Amino acid sequence: MAEAAQADCVMICVPVGAVEQVARQLLPHMKPGSILTDVASVRGQLGPKITAILPENVAYVPGHPMAGTEHSGPDAGFSTLFEDRWALLVPPEGADQNAITTIEKLWTLCGARTKILTDDEHDRICAMVSHLPHLLAFTICDTADNLSDELRAAVLDYAASGFRDFTRIAASDPVMWRDIFLANREALLGTLDRFVADTQAMADAIRKGDEAGIINRIERGRAIRRTLIENRQA
Amino acid sequence: MAEAAQADCVMICVPVGAVEQVARQLLPHMKPGSILTDVASVRGQLGPKITAILPENVAYVPGHPMAGTEHSGPDAGFSTLFEDRWALLVPPEGADQNAITTIEKLWTLCGARTKILTDDEHDRICAMVSHLPHLLAFTICDTADNLSDELRAAVLDYAASGFRDFTRIAASDPVMWRDIFLANREALLGTLDRFVADTQAMADAIRKGDEAGIINRIERGRAIRRTLIENRQA
Repeated sequence: MAEAAQADCVMICVPVGAVEQVARQLLPHMKPGSILTDVASVRGQLGPKITAILPENVAYVPGHPMAGTEHSGPDAGFSTLFEDRWALLVPPEGADQNAITTIEKLWTLCGARTKILTDDEHDRICAMVSHLPHLLAFTICDTADNLSDELRAAVLDYAASGFRDFTRIAASDPVMWRDIFLANREALLGTLDRFVADTQAMADAIRKGDEAGIINRIERGRAIRRTLIENRQA
Repeated sequence: MAEAAQADCVMICVPVGAVEQVARQLLPHMKPGSILTDVASVRGQLGPKITAILPENVAYVPGHPMAGTEHSGPDAGFSTLFEDRWALLVPPEGADQNAITTIEKLWTLCGARTKILTDDEHDRICAMVSHLPHLLAFTICDTADNLSDELRAAVLDYAASGFRDFTRIAASDPVMWRDIFLANREALLGTLDRFVADTQAMADAIRKGDEAGIINRIERGRAIRRTLIENRQA
């Protein structure tokens, strides 16, 4: 708390379910003109909640860096982690413009590009680009774990090509991801429903031997992948 | 065909739907004592079909290397592609033991480890470790492609972390994967059904706010990932 009282800026880096509680402890100690930020992966009602307890003369400008690996904590950082990645800033309405500029500068100095979004835009985007892939990664491991002993052992032996790429992100921290899934449940479950419907459509094409339908779905996937490469996000 | 007549061993490397046709063209030219092999990703009825048209004194020992990238064709090879990977051999019943030993040696010299499996074991394992992940990768891109223009553009901008790992294998060759999905449709659709059921169970846990249920599923995924690392397949 003594450090928070000295700081020009405090960044809360804890699982999303714990951000509000930590902010409640820190905010009374922060000095006038200082900035509170956090890196929570889900915005939900966090913005209004923190704004409601914000002391006068302390600004709140949260930002979510779209970068990371399956490892968590300070030891998981490396110097190029944020290079060419996006930091999505989600300042509450009416947030101090100087404070926003300072947080933009903070992320730019780390090598990131910044973008300002609303809480809702942020959460719908993250449901698709991060939360759904993690849910699928955890689940494909779950499915492998539920196989017969014999088949599971074989899967673990011969996992190269495909499966192992899916399992890398399944090594991520359980508490962090439990909190994300719960905090973004509405957008995540909506995105998952669309994905399951698309999966069933592909399954139907395979079941019926619809060669053109299968090719069409694969080709659209390749187009998305090509655009990622063009956007330097692949 | 002149080359096939000279060869001690011919390896067919074409999409699985085209293997039988190519074998029918090559086999009449192959010399006594030579070996036919292929690298098809689905065995299905391929073994019995080729065995039925095999000339006397030509052996058939197919093998499927569990390695590769999203790129296809001779130019996509590199010197360490097969190092520490498995080549799954699926010789038909009664295949010549000397020919099996020769094909084992061929893959060992490429750096791979070999294992002999039945067609059915091979296809069920590959449905889980390779065919399902590819189906999911194509589909998550399809889901992204089906979003509103505005949201799709945002997803393509901010794709780091998770999504891009899933899309890498979606760049794979459409004809090759159409053939694989159709050739292994029964095992693949069965594995997909289990996966979708597990996905719905995770979604239920999230919907109900079942914190212990979410953690339990994530922890099991992490255990599978740890075993992969121990098996040097991560």
